[in-house]
Amino acid sequence: MKNESITSRDVDFAKWYTDVVRAAKLADYTSVKGCIAIEPNGYAIWEKIQSIMDKKFKELGHVNVQMPLLIPESLFNQEKELIEGFAPELVWVTEVGDKKFEERYAIRSTSETVFCDYYKKHIRSYKDLPKLYNQWCNVFRYEKETRPFLRSREFLWQEGHTVHATAEEAEKETKQMMDVYKWFNHEILAIPSITGKKTEKEKFAGAEYTLTNEDLMYNGVCLQDGTSHYFGQKFSKAYDVKFTNKDNKEEYAYYTTWGKTTRMIAAIIMVHADDFGLVLPPRIAPKQVVIIPIGKDSSEVDELVNKFNKELNDNNIISYIDNSEKSPGFKFAEAEVNGIPVRLEIGARDLTNGTVTVARRDTREKIIIKKEELTVEYISNLLETIQKDMYDKALERQNKLTFTAKNMEDMENILNTQPGFIHADWCGDVECENKIKEIKGCKSRCIQDEPLITGKCVCCGREAKHHVIWGIQY
Amino acid sequence: MKNESITSRDVDFAKWYTDVVRAAKLADYTSVKGCIAIEPNGYAIWEKIQSIMDKKFKELGHVNVQMPLLIPESLFNQEKELIEGFAPELVWVTEVGDKKFEERYAIRSTSETVFCDYYKKHIRSYKDLPKLYNQWCNVFRYEKETRPFLRSREFLWQEGHTVHATAEEAEKETKQMMDVYKWFNHEILAIPSITGKKTEKEKFAGAEYTLTNEDLMYNGVCLQDGTSHYFGQKFSKAYDVKFTNKDNKEEYAYYTTWGKTTRMIAAIIMVHADDFGLVLPPRIAPKQVVIIPIGKDSSEVDELVNKFNKELNDNNIISYIDNSEKSPGFKFAEAEVNGIPVRLEIGARDLTNGTVTVARRDTREKIIIKKEELTVEYISNLLETIQKDMYDKALERQNKLTFTAKNMEDMENILNTQPGFIHADWCGDVECENKIKEIKGCKSRCIQDEPLITGKCVCCGREAKHHVIWGIQY
Repeated sequence: MKNESITSRDVDFAKWYTDVVRAAKLADYTSVKGCIAIEPNGYAIWEKIQSIMDKKFKELGHVNVQMPLLIPESLFNQEKELIEGFAPELVWVTEVGDKKFEERYAIRSTSETVFCDYYKKHIRSYKDLPKLYNQWCNVFRYEKETRPFLRSREFLWQEGHTVHATAEEAEKETKQMMDVYKWFNHEILAIPSITGKKTEKEKFAGAEYTLTNEDLMYNGVCLQDGTSHYFGQKFSKAYDVKFTNKDNKEEYAYYTTWGKTTRMIAAIIMVHADDFGLVLPPRIAPKQVVIIPIGKDSSEVDELVNKFNKELNDNNIISYIDNSEKSPGFKFAEAEVNGIPVRLEIGARDLTNGTVTVARRDTREKIIIKKEELTVEYISNLLETIQKDMYDKALERQNKLTFTAKNMEDMENILNTQPGFIHADWCGDVECENKIKEIKGCKSRCIQDEPLITGKCVCCGREAKHHVIWGIQY
Repeated sequence: MKNESITSRDVDFAKWYTDVVRAAKLADYTSVKGCIAIEPNGYAIWEKIQSIMDKKFKELGHVNVQMPLLIPESLFNQEKELIEGFAPELVWVTEVGDKKFEERYAIRSTSETVFCDYYKKHIRSYKDLPKLYNQWCNVFRYEKETRPFLRSREFLWQEGHTVHATAEEAEKETKQMMDVYKWFNHEILAIPSITGKKTEKEKFAGAEYTLTNEDLMYNGVCLQDGTSHYFGQKFSKAYDVKFTNKDNKEEYAYYTTWGKTTRMIAAIIMVHADDFGLVLPPRIAPKQVVIIPIGKDSSEVDELVNKFNKELNDNNIISYIDNSEKSPGFKFAEAEVNGIPVRLEIGARDLTNGTVTVARRDTREKIIIKKEELTVEYISNLLETIQKDMYDKALERQNKLTFTAKNMEDMENILNTQPGFIHADWCGDVECENKIKEIKGCKSRCIQDEPLITGKCVCCGREAKHHVIWGIQY
């Protein structure tokens, strides 16, 4: 039974996406153009993301802080590349009550400026380093076209801002945090992202270089989902962040930033969801198991349901009983559209036969097992199987949608037939990048460490410098 | 040994306060006037506050959401009392890049408007009720005079917004959440707050009534620290939040909001800190125990320190070892200024004598115990004793600073000598409230359920309606 409120994914992917967002009650539009209300089901996923990522950040020595939301225009102007990169998207606070401010304040679109301003004041000696600060907050970018989670004017994220005494240490941090992002996508979100370095054209405004985490959506479109930037001394020179090194000499500090956003929820949907609604990988699901008792007034059913629900929760499996007044069919559909990984149907008639029904959300399989087989271990193993299977399925699709282009004809054929990750060699010239972009807006995603394919640039045929992955992006 | 960077509390309380904030590295001023950077030590306290409060909210059935930061002016204007109450403090976003918006957007100073706008769209039937939503976010109020945590232009808070099908249920929620706030202050922050209803003059703009949680600071000044508002149908009429009730009739919904902020950190400081720095109640301390090994290269010391640190953490006591290169004296002072409840000093010489030293931050007592006495249970009991003693000490001071005024002469004498919580009867007339305010800005804090004292208004001598607590406020 297809969910009537959801357009088929293969018919209209864009509409399917927003239908899933609405049907699973993740977010809704608001009276503030381009800004969403993140609803309980959506925010619970974000809380789970936060708790797992934050734990990992702290294990690696990071601490959380909170810097101001507003940035004086003069402060922003100190780093030209940054203001140029963000200027069209910045919104400005100009008045309090009916009084004009002398200077405009931008709502943060990113916080390099305020962090550097803080570090300038607080870093004196190499003994003050490293500073490993992170903040969870809201940011604002005035995007022209918006879509819930994917591209919203206001979004939530974490932004790490670290300062180090040596370039080596800062570069190690940049790489380490990209590894954390990749780990998070692979192990927690069941998304087989690829990582690599951005080209000069695609890197973050003002960075020396940018590492990126790139996901492939069901429709073959790419999604940038987490970046880690190495700034060298560029920002510390612009914002005067200096320290006295071990040789008692003054030196500019080495700076990194890294961020990952509520866009992850868009990635979960566009990689895993289906025509029946959301499908959540068990490790990120705020609720992993729903137990639906069938038939009223059966003390045998109630007893088993309550006992098993408690056992699951006591063993750190997040389970709940749907005891609402709705019909079992309605409850099944709701659990399905909300993407709960495992649904247990426990009815009086089945218990007489000594069975219970277990439904997997990912495969929509219904498994009838003997009552005695229903143990915490069984559910725990099933959740791990689902997590693994979801990753494998996403990887299999990603592999199918991964192509190689040797020349521009290949490139055009692929992009006109079925976009995906396209491996192709590149000479390093931005003109070739621009030419490739003319085909459906295809951009370089990231540079790979892998060996060259043909040794010739896919565009101009000259000697290639890099093996690059290309694709159409959100 | 007094901390040289901290002014004596009895000499200059205001300076002492900001000195403690700086010395304990809780927050610092920024280039954005009136806005602070919450530093790791300060933010860790906020994280602890969030985790405990959020757990309690969820146990009571609340769920978290995230609404937009910006509020269109037209939406704000729908509720006149609200806009009048907040208008002078609102800052406005008017431009993107260099382009003017057609309509101004306020940065939220509170989110009643956006929540009601959301509920209007999402509530149809009594079956959709109650909605028990909360959000953790930043808000902005353009205060003229600011002080870190106490009154900052941007601050962090939680704001609960709940909608109910009956007045009775909504009023129950209003009271319940005030009970939660009181519980949190008493049991977790060790602050013996009082609660009660605000007078008409002091209630929240647009509310039917406001319940408040009031703390008494070391210097006898009062601090409003958490409010819970009952709106009845007032806002739902302004924002058209209607539902079909059980009798199939259309009805306006019943609305409550409740909030508590980073101001709690100011309360912790002004109730518990001393001339040596911060003093944290164990239940809110991000780090409860610091272990300082003394003397180098003693494997006996290292072994005991590592083993005991692990034992504590395995038993949910948050402990860490200070293995930095600083001198023991420096480490003691740092642990002291940061307010860590328990400090263990473990040295080779002491171990030879079979002893270790335990220092309590609250009393600054040094206790020498036998090595065998140092158990998880000993530390666990000590932390509970400290928590209790801190509450008792605060309560004892609060009781000493609690007075009764029978007439205006009493009122003036008290306020001119030593302010505090002042119990006095009141006729209910705002003119009397205004006259009392002429004495050093003294305001009604809250109405008490307690019986009347004299039965006569402290100001006009007419028949009293309420037993009220009065005081000078931050």
